[in-house]
Amino acid sequence: MNMRVPFDQLKAVIKQALLNVGLPEEKAEICARIHSETSLDGIESHGLNRVPRFVNYVKKGLVNVHAEPELIHARGLAENYDGNLGVGIINAMFCMDRAIALAKEHGLGIVTIRNTTHWMRGGTYAWQAAEQGMLAINWTNTESCMPMWGSTEISVGNNPFCMAIPDEKTPIVLDMALSLYSYGKLETYRLAGKQLPYPGGFDKNGNLTSDPGAIEESQRILPTGYWKGSGLAIALDMAAAILANGKTGLDMDAEGNGNCTSCCQVFIVIDPTIFSTKEEIEQMIKNRIDAVHNAKPEKEGDTVTVPGERSLAKRAYNLANGVPVNEQVWTRVQELAKKI
Amino acid sequence: MNMRVPFDQLKAVIKQALLNVGLPEEKAEICARIHSETSLDGIESHGLNRVPRFVNYVKKGLVNVHAEPELIHARGLAENYDGNLGVGIINAMFCMDRAIALAKEHGLGIVTIRNTTHWMRGGTYAWQAAEQGMLAINWTNTESCMPMWGSTEISVGNNPFCMAIPDEKTPIVLDMALSLYSYGKLETYRLAGKQLPYPGGFDKNGNLTSDPGAIEESQRILPTGYWKGSGLAIALDMAAAILANGKTGLDMDAEGNGNCTSCCQVFIVIDPTIFSTKEEIEQMIKNRIDAVHNAKPEKEGDTVTVPGERSLAKRAYNLANGVPVNEQVWTRVQELAKKI
Repeated sequence: MNMRVPFDQLKAVIKQALLNVGLPEEKAEICARIHSETSLDGIESHGLNRVPRFVNYVKKGLVNVHAEPELIHARGLAENYDGNLGVGIINAMFCMDRAIALAKEHGLGIVTIRNTTHWMRGGTYAWQAAEQGMLAINWTNTESCMPMWGSTEISVGNNPFCMAIPDEKTPIVLDMALSLYSYGKLETYRLAGKQLPYPGGFDKNGNLTSDPGAIEESQRILPTGYWKGSGLAIALDMAAAILANGKTGLDMDAEGNGNCTSCCQVFIVIDPTIFSTKEEIEQMIKNRIDAVHNAKPEKEGDTVTVPGERSLAKRAYNLANGVPVNEQVWTRVQELAKKI
Repeated sequence: MNMRVPFDQLKAVIKQALLNVGLPEEKAEICARIHSETSLDGIESHGLNRVPRFVNYVKKGLVNVHAEPELIHARGLAENYDGNLGVGIINAMFCMDRAIALAKEHGLGIVTIRNTTHWMRGGTYAWQAAEQGMLAINWTNTESCMPMWGSTEISVGNNPFCMAIPDEKTPIVLDMALSLYSYGKLETYRLAGKQLPYPGGFDKNGNLTSDPGAIEESQRILPTGYWKGSGLAIALDMAAAILANGKTGLDMDAEGNGNCTSCCQVFIVIDPTIFSTKEEIEQMIKNRIDAVHNAKPEKEGDTVTVPGERSLAKRAYNLANGVPVNEQVWTRVQELAKKI
């Protein structure tokens, strides 16, 4: 069952749950805001729903709430950090902030981090850059969760890839996992007794299927774009580990410490006004947004959108009407937030 | 009908065809090599098969064979060029060379170019970086050729995205168009009377289909990964135009001067040893390649591969056994190469 909770209440409860598990005040405040904003934007999987697992990771010692990112190497506008298995959101925000600062100074900045933990919603950091007027590309590697193309075994991560194109009115913010559907999405469809909108994997006989349960059984979820997403996932994994001097997805598999523990992340930020004026950029984006909104929709009455635009609309709606939460998860997090 | 032609003969004939249409000696030599190497790697669409269209573009004045890339702005390790509608291959190789030089000096380099023309196979420039020991990301925008997700009208380019991870033995080189199948691929399957291996678009009634003819009729080819590739294509188009201070896909649509004429390209190059040692990188790549080769294949006897690996194998085989060419196209290019 879904219900709606005011944003401030959601954030306060999450914050208390995080304080209870030992996060320092400032980190609890930031993480509570990010988890709440993620639910606010309609991404429940990495918003409220993810809080119990994060709390569990802290309890198990997989996340060190007191660790800070540590500068390992700097070379001009490139910096490399060790995340010391600190809080993923805090580490990633720090890195994106540094990359933005480097880009503001030099036109371009790249920050990489190793030994960090799950950054939750990758789009958080793309939005962070967009809100600072910066163009960004950021990605993470992660442990294996899908078969590489041509294989039947789980062997590569779904390594999310994000891009931000800033605009005061309609930033374009892409947040793209490289599995077509997450396991969470498969479960949602199975529990609802529904087929996936498009084939999402192979069944155990190797046939393409839209049946979520058959894919959960075979564990053969599809890479985004079949062989293409598989190849991109491999390339992003290697590039992250190389540029951050850290662990690959295979190293994480070998450690088996849970989702994204000791992963690597890359934050590339470019000042969009490096070669174009603000006015030229505004015009380009306005033209694209107009074309998108005027494109003939598949279903009459629908509107085509750019990446990030639906999040922005949900954000406004949910801020006014309350953030949708799953009642069971909400009860669980309220339990975690009880004063101890 | 396919036949095989020795690499040197293929290259000599293409070179003569390019000289006949007015390319200066050095440019004809480079372009002939790249078209031949593209066919050599098994990418016939942008190899020999593309030569007649390129010749036609030159004849129509859409490509200026005497134009050179012109530096518009430089800021530290970032450079912006105008391609002056010169030869796409020459312009792109020049830009990748500059980005490599900047990365060798600073650890990182970004070069953007506007008003250039079709670069043919995007992977050419990723291979160029890999062969120089550099990690690279490069992409181009192009005129619209597929519907944005949620629309039924052609409204966004298939903007290819490439990545290179260098390795002396097995570089990882990704070359990924953002339409799942090209129109060329649809035609090949239709002419062979075959269905596509996976659904490749919608028919005119809006049903997902693997029938190539039905997709050619509806013109609703699928973005790679459905909504994901559509979003990425929009983001890459905007980022290219903004960073190169040039034309968006929509601007190219409005001009209607043919495939990729006046497009923008981005070349980001990073020295992989900026934060990791050569030995660490070699080990990471070796581990991944081993895991790939040991992964349980879908079909017994097959081997799973990393992006670029099949090209490398075809390259070796075709160099020894002759480059596969379509007999009709080969005859046509031999005609174009007749001494004038």
